[in-house]
Amino acid sequence: MNAHTPQPASVIAAPVIAIVGATGVVGQALRDSLARRHFAVSELRLLASARSAGQVLRFDGAPVTVQELTEDSFAGVDIAFFAAGATISRKFAPIAVAAGAKVIDNSSAFRMQEDIALVVPEANAHALPADAQIVANPNCIAAILTTALAPLHQRWSITRLALTTYQAASGGGAAMMDELRDGTRALLEGADFTPQVLPHSYAFNFFSHNADIDPETGYNGEELKVIAETRRIFDQPSLPISVTCIRVPVLRAHGIALSVRFADHVGADSIRSALDGAPGLRLVDDPASNHFPMPSEASGQEDVLVGRIRTDLGDPSGRTITMFVVGDQLLKGAAQNAVQIAETLQAAAKSRAA
Amino acid sequence: MNAHTPQPASVIAAPVIAIVGATGVVGQALRDSLARRHFAVSELRLLASARSAGQVLRFDGAPVTVQELTEDSFAGVDIAFFAAGATISRKFAPIAVAAGAKVIDNSSAFRMQEDIALVVPEANAHALPADAQIVANPNCIAAILTTALAPLHQRWSITRLALTTYQAASGGGAAMMDELRDGTRALLEGADFTPQVLPHSYAFNFFSHNADIDPETGYNGEELKVIAETRRIFDQPSLPISVTCIRVPVLRAHGIALSVRFADHVGADSIRSALDGAPGLRLVDDPASNHFPMPSEASGQEDVLVGRIRTDLGDPSGRTITMFVVGDQLLKGAAQNAVQIAETLQAAAKSRAA
Repeated sequence: MNAHTPQPASVIAAPVIAIVGATGVVGQALRDSLARRHFAVSELRLLASARSAGQVLRFDGAPVTVQELTEDSFAGVDIAFFAAGATISRKFAPIAVAAGAKVIDNSSAFRMQEDIALVVPEANAHALPADAQIVANPNCIAAILTTALAPLHQRWSITRLALTTYQAASGGGAAMMDELRDGTRALLEGADFTPQVLPHSYAFNFFSHNADIDPETGYNGEELKVIAETRRIFDQPSLPISVTCIRVPVLRAHGIALSVRFADHVGADSIRSALDGAPGLRLVDDPASNHFPMPSEASGQEDVLVGRIRTDLGDPSGRTITMFVVGDQLLKGAAQNAVQIAETLQAAAKSRAA
Repeated sequence: MNAHTPQPASVIAAPVIAIVGATGVVGQALRDSLARRHFAVSELRLLASARSAGQVLRFDGAPVTVQELTEDSFAGVDIAFFAAGATISRKFAPIAVAAGAKVIDNSSAFRMQEDIALVVPEANAHALPADAQIVANPNCIAAILTTALAPLHQRWSITRLALTTYQAASGGGAAMMDELRDGTRALLEGADFTPQVLPHSYAFNFFSHNADIDPETGYNGEELKVIAETRRIFDQPSLPISVTCIRVPVLRAHGIALSVRFADHVGADSIRSALDGAPGLRLVDDPASNHFPMPSEASGQEDVLVGRIRTDLGDPSGRTITMFVVGDQLLKGAAQNAVQIAETLQAAAKSRAA
């Protein structure tokens, strides 16, 4: 685009943005991501249930009053971020589209719907049609995982993934984060505490992800999402994926212990070079000082941290690489990826207009 | 053994027991395990550094004064448990043996020494010679892992293991447990806290196990121990094992996300039946209520918990089973296994005498 070319007003004008589920942890992270990424916004409309209407939140320093989500909420909205669960998305996303908005949906409602793109910009921006009406934002683990794998997938043929997760409380929302903090405080003080969100204590405890178990496979809903969404993002519909999702007593960054098998031999040094400096990634891989990715360094950060890169001793063929990945669940695992999708759509609109 | 056969006095007499490193967390767990397993003890000698001498600890309700460990500490001792690190074991275990004691060593000093047995009674009691002078107690993960795998190893041919760990603070001793508690309390109160044991915060944080990294393989010392010791316990010197060791903010129970590949197809139901009721194991595997092994239920328990048993979707051949295992690091992962070795030696002595 030539800087001297006059732009049509419809493209230059900053969009009107709505956030559905504005008072939740992802809703808050969406405001944070829009602000920190300097996403141009002409108006921000914060939408939530009647219970939250009237609450005053802040965006980029200015107060914004939360409005009740209704069928009339989307008049004039250009981009609507949905972060209020699949039921709300199924009902209100078509209403927002009918009102002329593009929807970027953080729920699982549309992720496996064939005519709707599921996008992690670092991994499959090409899958995002410029005229998309609804775009699905993936599950947090799938987003962090595919960001870390994108430079490898682009270069080599991946034939198998095996991962186990170390998932933070934030994936369960503000209530689960509070339960972790409050339960831990009570345990340290020797006080009584009755868990409200989980059927057991979260303080200094880890547990199999609390999504329902599929009776046929024994996999839980989170694990099945990771498998289906990762396959879809990489357009490898039968990629073998082994996954176990465990929640650990950490507030907002997810870890992934990951093994990647390639069709051919790829050395750990080649993997390290491919990951170093790749979009959305930061290499944290210092064996001499035992410094590798940790939630304490990934929380609140846009980049996904990757390290502990080594040839997997469990695969005698030498074709498997093992690594450790940590990313902020609320940012790359949710809000930030949604904002990046919006940026990609805006860039496509600008380039079409140019 | 016939109940009416008179026993020689030397076998009937309860042994004199020494604990080297009596004031550490494993030393304390050894006292606990001896008491809770009703191990017959005629005298308990608690040995530690000069700094700890004079401290009064309790065993089975009675006070016992800690003595300084010296070359003369082992006169009259029948069984000496060592839990004070490899340097102390290398120096004092031969002295204890020369004084006529049998040594059960919790350190890594002798674990890979060919003429010394490395024993997890559920997995390889047959490897323990009745006249053993020194017996090595394995690394905590190797002990918990081989206990969980023993009934499978006995029945089927295991061709590959892949595991990632969720390891508790207790593996780093009392100081690391205190750092987890104190750092977490400070974070919750918004107070300053400078870590002393670790080079980073442990509060609501996980990190790659702090053992040194082997520059050649990129694996850390903990991971290499798990590989070498598991192979030795199962007498499968070239079993392919993939392992990543991560420490999580949990106090005393270790988790293992485990995939086991078999030479032939074995169904998840057969695995579940083989594990249910096996020695040292408790099945916690209820998909309907999402109830699986957790540290909150494994801590302070003798049994290792196993569950989330399912066919691994990442192996298209269907020959891999995935499961989740949690065991108390201080009990089955250390002290209890050492006491079980002592029980096995005593039983062998009795049966020889009978």
